[in-house]
Amino acid sequence: MALNALFSPETVAVIGASKSPEKIGHEVLANLGGFDGDVFPVNPNSDGELFGRPFHESVTDVPKQVDLALLCLPAPVTPDVMEDCGTAGVGAAVIYGGGFAEAGEEGESLQRAVTEIADERGISILGPNTSGFLVPRSGLYTHFVDGTDRVEHGNVAVVAQSGGVGTALAFQAVSEGRGLSAMVGLGNRANVGFNSVIEYFDADEETDAIVLHLEGTDDARGLLEVCEAADTPVAVYKVGQEDVNDFAASHTGALTGDHELYVGGFRQHGIATASSTTRLLDVGVTLAKAGPIDGPNVGVVTAQAGPGIIAADRLKAAGAELPSFDDATSESIDAILPGITFSGNPVDTGRPMPEFSDVVAHVASDDAIDVVLVYQVYEPAVGFHADALSSLPEETGTPVLFATNGPEDEIREDLSELESVGIPAFPSVERGADAAAAAIEYAARQRVVGEGNDR
Amino acid sequence: MALNALFSPETVAVIGASKSPEKIGHEVLANLGGFDGDVFPVNPNSDGELFGRPFHESVTDVPKQVDLALLCLPAPVTPDVMEDCGTAGVGAAVIYGGGFAEAGEEGESLQRAVTEIADERGISILGPNTSGFLVPRSGLYTHFVDGTDRVEHGNVAVVAQSGGVGTALAFQAVSEGRGLSAMVGLGNRANVGFNSVIEYFDADEETDAIVLHLEGTDDARGLLEVCEAADTPVAVYKVGQEDVNDFAASHTGALTGDHELYVGGFRQHGIATASSTTRLLDVGVTLAKAGPIDGPNVGVVTAQAGPGIIAADRLKAAGAELPSFDDATSESIDAILPGITFSGNPVDTGRPMPEFSDVVAHVASDDAIDVVLVYQVYEPAVGFHADALSSLPEETGTPVLFATNGPEDEIREDLSELESVGIPAFPSVERGADAAAAAIEYAARQRVVGEGNDR
Repeated sequence: MALNALFSPETVAVIGASKSPEKIGHEVLANLGGFDGDVFPVNPNSDGELFGRPFHESVTDVPKQVDLALLCLPAPVTPDVMEDCGTAGVGAAVIYGGGFAEAGEEGESLQRAVTEIADERGISILGPNTSGFLVPRSGLYTHFVDGTDRVEHGNVAVVAQSGGVGTALAFQAVSEGRGLSAMVGLGNRANVGFNSVIEYFDADEETDAIVLHLEGTDDARGLLEVCEAADTPVAVYKVGQEDVNDFAASHTGALTGDHELYVGGFRQHGIATASSTTRLLDVGVTLAKAGPIDGPNVGVVTAQAGPGIIAADRLKAAGAELPSFDDATSESIDAILPGITFSGNPVDTGRPMPEFSDVVAHVASDDAIDVVLVYQVYEPAVGFHADALSSLPEETGTPVLFATNGPEDEIREDLSELESVGIPAFPSVERGADAAAAAIEYAARQRVVGEGNDR
Repeated sequence: MALNALFSPETVAVIGASKSPEKIGHEVLANLGGFDGDVFPVNPNSDGELFGRPFHESVTDVPKQVDLALLCLPAPVTPDVMEDCGTAGVGAAVIYGGGFAEAGEEGESLQRAVTEIADERGISILGPNTSGFLVPRSGLYTHFVDGTDRVEHGNVAVVAQSGGVGTALAFQAVSEGRGLSAMVGLGNRANVGFNSVIEYFDADEETDAIVLHLEGTDDARGLLEVCEAADTPVAVYKVGQEDVNDFAASHTGALTGDHELYVGGFRQHGIATASSTTRLLDVGVTLAKAGPIDGPNVGVVTAQAGPGIIAADRLKAAGAELPSFDDATSESIDAILPGITFSGNPVDTGRPMPEFSDVVAHVASDDAIDVVLVYQVYEPAVGFHADALSSLPEETGTPVLFATNGPEDEIREDLSELESVGIPAFPSVERGADAAAAAIEYAARQRVVGEGNDR
């Protein structure tokens, strides 16, 4: 099912739009203030205007062809409204309400009824029981949580089984100054699930990595195959290492399944994995920004030794390697650095210094090195050498990752700038090291899958 | 060795104070602008004043008794200046410079010479090869990295083997709106090491938890015993799971030792552990704010199910338990919540609602529950119910932890407020769950140690 009507509509109707600020139908309309298409509030019980837009009684009364309907309604009235949407030729609907398959037998039968109407009428349903989605590039913020409309455009697509986790990831992106090409909360997956959404964003030119929050799905094999077939890198945070099925079933109606089978499947199908929401977004940004990594060999350059030891420790524990530099590199570094520092790998410049980026350049140029991890505490008097670093990935062909600590509100802009030139940037050495290790692991899985396909 | 002269001086001399902004001797003097004692710049090559304070030629010329000397000097001149400090009756010195035990034989013999002078003259040395320390309550910011003077007063003391890691932890505290009672970067530990610093802050009334960054020490047994003997909870991040000795030795002159022996020792001696700088500070804040936890039983209350599943999954994986609520609690919750949500443990309110804090109160009052973890995505229209939550720990005797996601700059103040009333607060559900699990593990270790001591 093509999802253009859902993610790239020209005309949107908010059904159940409301003048009461505490209602979802108010927040959803408010968040569409910057949408670059047409928006029509629909509510048979409201007169006049809201946010300068006149109300209509029914979606069938809207004077333009509606591509996407946002249903801010109680569950029981949903079937009738879906019939109206069918009559109006609506292509896609977001159903926010709960009380469907996650809520016992009655809810299940209601969801079946709604899905049948949608399937007959050719309507793609996001939800029910979702917080919505957002596509920042077109100002399409259909999420009902206030503040998620601050997510900026970027090249990572987030697809979350849980709307709440999608919201959490959206706020993470806002807090860390990272953009997203989209954030989608799937909810109960009536007829739009992981597979069609992954295929849509795989084909999207603005998306360079897709990250998934997964509780469980009936079609694990299908999901693995779609992820493997995607040209865009895919990373997954699979929840449910422990038995949390009672609670999970009451949530989006899905069991978490056999965790180990999933984890083995991700490895075999060349899919990256992460173990928390924070790491998931970090891995997504790394795969989207840094490009492919050729092998396990990391060159670590640090201006403070202690964090450098932490980086080396975590990288090795995760299976990465820190090879010796070749002689030319070591000689170049020795010529730059005073004798008291450590010019092995990690190389420690002792303190930030004007020549810091030259050291990074020599390491990035070393044939033994597949990826460089740079750590430097923020010192306003010295700065980050962002300009000097930014040309390195292109000049040397070696991906560079950057980690730092500093006052969040001062470093955020610098980190965003680095990411905009292809250098993933992290606010702690551990997050930088973990992202490098995950990207190396992903590259290794991809090589195995590639060799299998060549046979 | 008592460390009052180091951490609670009345008079400070900055030896090597400099008018050149790029010098450490400039930054150190600048960061002391708010110190509530006397500060004297010392430099035989400088005339006039700096930051309104007149230069003196030598520490022996300072017109008051100097408690603490901050040595912003190259390594080779340090012995002579230490002799001057002895003559002037200085009680403690911070030696920032590198080129000592971390830098080969020559440096080792220089460090020995300096330590001998210090020991003879009764001078406590922090360093050499450190970035300094800070005690916010008295405006004593002796750290040379600009911006670390923004750390506010709090009740967690950070003791880092590496000055760079101490700086990283200080910036973490700033970024997350958390205060510290102190941050100390030990460096080469000439005659002030972990043990005396831990004893000092154990006796400090403003310190309610001590967190350590540890690479390695020659006296592991002594360290374990000091930590066990402390009345204040101690948590450790031990680096060096992998072999990083080459690099570590070149850093602060210490090997990382046998990691497994350390980890076993921490468990046996009732010391909390953490696996990253972020987790270390999270555990420290939890131990300092939430107070003792009686057992492994967590009640999870969430306003968004997906993050609740993540919390349950991580807590169980870390050995915590999520017991059923007793009947009275379940009935009270059922009376508050509409039938569609899950009133087991975790309890999911579906969305934030005015009664959210009532649900938390019922769970906190349940005898089966030892600690409550609350998760709620930030919604400006709904708010955090911080006022209602804040009285719960005292009213119920049950520690409460709070986790959320939201735009960092908006939630930071709310999280700080919650922490100020004894509710540790975290900007992701994983960090909240990990902190709860670590505090539970710490409590279990403490009980075992207590039983051993009772025998």
